[in-house]
Amino acid sequence: MKELDEIGLKAKQASMQLAHLNTDQKNKVLLMVADLLESSVTPLLEANADDLKEAKTMGLKGAIVERLTLTIEKILGIAEGLRQIVQLEDPIGEIEEMKRRPNGLLIGKKRVPLGVVGVIYESRPNVTADVAGLCIKTGNVCVLRGGKEAFRSNNAIVKIFHQAIQQCGLDPQMVQLVQDTSRESAVAMMKLNKYLDILIPRGGAGLIQAVVQNSTVPVIETGVGNCHIYVDEEADLEKAVEIVYNAKTQRPGVCNAAESLLVHQKVASEMLPIIGARLTEGGVEIRGDKRTCSLIPGAIPATQEDWSTEYLDLVISSKVVGSVEEAVEHINTYGSMHSESIVTENYSHAQYFLDRVDAAAVYVNASTRFTDGFEFGYGAEIGISTQKLHARGPMGLRELTTSKYIIYGSGQIR
Amino acid sequence: MKELDEIGLKAKQASMQLAHLNTDQKNKVLLMVADLLESSVTPLLEANADDLKEAKTMGLKGAIVERLTLTIEKILGIAEGLRQIVQLEDPIGEIEEMKRRPNGLLIGKKRVPLGVVGVIYESRPNVTADVAGLCIKTGNVCVLRGGKEAFRSNNAIVKIFHQAIQQCGLDPQMVQLVQDTSRESAVAMMKLNKYLDILIPRGGAGLIQAVVQNSTVPVIETGVGNCHIYVDEEADLEKAVEIVYNAKTQRPGVCNAAESLLVHQKVASEMLPIIGARLTEGGVEIRGDKRTCSLIPGAIPATQEDWSTEYLDLVISSKVVGSVEEAVEHINTYGSMHSESIVTENYSHAQYFLDRVDAAAVYVNASTRFTDGFEFGYGAEIGISTQKLHARGPMGLRELTTSKYIIYGSGQIR
Repeated sequence: MKELDEIGLKAKQASMQLAHLNTDQKNKVLLMVADLLESSVTPLLEANADDLKEAKTMGLKGAIVERLTLTIEKILGIAEGLRQIVQLEDPIGEIEEMKRRPNGLLIGKKRVPLGVVGVIYESRPNVTADVAGLCIKTGNVCVLRGGKEAFRSNNAIVKIFHQAIQQCGLDPQMVQLVQDTSRESAVAMMKLNKYLDILIPRGGAGLIQAVVQNSTVPVIETGVGNCHIYVDEEADLEKAVEIVYNAKTQRPGVCNAAESLLVHQKVASEMLPIIGARLTEGGVEIRGDKRTCSLIPGAIPATQEDWSTEYLDLVISSKVVGSVEEAVEHINTYGSMHSESIVTENYSHAQYFLDRVDAAAVYVNASTRFTDGFEFGYGAEIGISTQKLHARGPMGLRELTTSKYIIYGSGQIR
Repeated sequence: MKELDEIGLKAKQASMQLAHLNTDQKNKVLLMVADLLESSVTPLLEANADDLKEAKTMGLKGAIVERLTLTIEKILGIAEGLRQIVQLEDPIGEIEEMKRRPNGLLIGKKRVPLGVVGVIYESRPNVTADVAGLCIKTGNVCVLRGGKEAFRSNNAIVKIFHQAIQQCGLDPQMVQLVQDTSRESAVAMMKLNKYLDILIPRGGAGLIQAVVQNSTVPVIETGVGNCHIYVDEEADLEKAVEIVYNAKTQRPGVCNAAESLLVHQKVASEMLPIIGARLTEGGVEIRGDKRTCSLIPGAIPATQEDWSTEYLDLVISSKVVGSVEEAVEHINTYGSMHSESIVTENYSHAQYFLDRVDAAAVYVNASTRFTDGFEFGYGAEIGISTQKLHARGPMGLRELTTSKYIIYGSGQIR
């Protein structure tokens, strides 16, 4: 596709400049973008209003419209997010493991940008600014392919980036927004391995699977979270109730929210009715196995499909298991390797769960909702990786870099 | 494909056991394999002789037959390689960056196996043992798909692994050799993302590109090396001659050998005839641009294709350039991001080259032949990554691992 080939080439060229800016230069751009965002609230809201109007005529509603909507607070929040990125340490240029070999060669591992980062995403215009900000700080050119529904909002935000970059005397090509928002442009982007060093899909499971199946660019899978809370036979009841309730209801639409509850059979008849009552009070629909349904009034029978479903809503599946081993096996079979938690006071069960569950983040006695760059102390994140290669869990600045060996010699040969 | 689905499932199951063995258990297996290899020289050579006999009837010859051939020394070398892997530190289970967050959560990053590692490779039977050894040490199950020509040798080696594993009371499924060596089995392996966590092609550029284009399993690109030596205007002549000669001729068939020579125009007429004479003496064919051909008797004109060619032979391309900037641009255009070297006494040129060349290993005043796990001090390697994601440069034990966050709470909710 012509547009993408051109964008790829320009991106590659711009990456030569961006990769070699120093931290002050990059921070200056980010601060200027933050200032301009704050002074451009009106045009941004206008562009967003046009998107929302069209979304209405397209028949969009509910969560997607909510994610699409910009407000003054959201815009100020985006600017604040960029200022926070300025505060984070720049990983680029750091030399790790410098050492002298017996033959006199001095070998170091230097942290460098990936180069060109592609992101395919949906509806939320704040992703545009977040990704561009993280990429600029790490010396990466970004190629952004947002959703059709946020076309005007995304363009308005990118315009502000370009303005700030130009005012700093730099090449605005370092932030690229794909103008073609057709399905074809997403497919073309997946084949752009000549120019893109990494492709990150941010969106629903359908988008992510399409990218994994079709991309020739190396992909980072992010964000699908079928997270479990396992209430062990030696769980503290109060902790169990609070953790399950928090993990399910505090923000049900996000990837680190709990989607499934597992309870040990020895405590099921004591704890499930109490946990169930709390969830039901909170408006949560419970889809349970036979035992759950017999213990929680109003629970409806779960189907096989429920065990693999990420509801992103006030719904939870629930199953009674015979042991911590069975819980772990269930999680490793149906989970999405995102975040998993055990509630227990038993040391060996806790260690077994930590060791055996195969996921980006494994918790003892805490809500899965903590899997997040800020909560982990790394600052802003570009996504939460649920794959094993390159990055696992919240992806911050360091995960947007790679390394190269630099070797200082004095004529060494083999 | 039925065989691969079955292998995948068995591999996944075996990974549950292997991932949780301690270092002593894994080392015991490796030492037993080493002992058995040494006491099985005769059957191994017999199996290899059958492969070689068939290779002959298939019309194979030259380098491929050389790589396929086992000798007593090679077998003892394989056993010694496994003993060296035993000596290396086991990265599994190490906890990095353990820290307490303000809310009391204790968050650590634990090094864990990738899970199931697939490798597609050609001819060399020692790869079978090297890969299996590195994978066992890092708690990874390996699925090996070797070349048809090495079928009997590979099976003989894997039989020894299975024997040793069983004698240790463990599950032999941790080392899997694909029996179907058709093209279809390689393609099926590329689609086995349900079971494989990573796929590493080891072989020629054709194999690697096929895997990159078709694999739905995350791939590590390895081993294609179109490496350059740039002789700067301020190069020391003696160093230049020795480094170019060594990088080209010391072992021309490997990926870190030099394939292309760039010389600054200011020193071309002084240095190219001397470098050229040394290369010609060493039996190297020189394919040069106009200027090179006018300076080196016997040099033949290079075509555009030569600049991108990895000869893996006693052939080198040669070009005169106007500046270090032009040299870097040429390398970033035609190189394969493997190993690149500048010969210079000029500080700024050296730093510019180190900064701007985009490759796994960038050298000043040394032969590119040092890009190697042993030479870098990391021990045995599974390949040399020329991509930016996950691993770059020599991939040792640590590059066969991933991490997971483990979080110790006491009832924390958000």
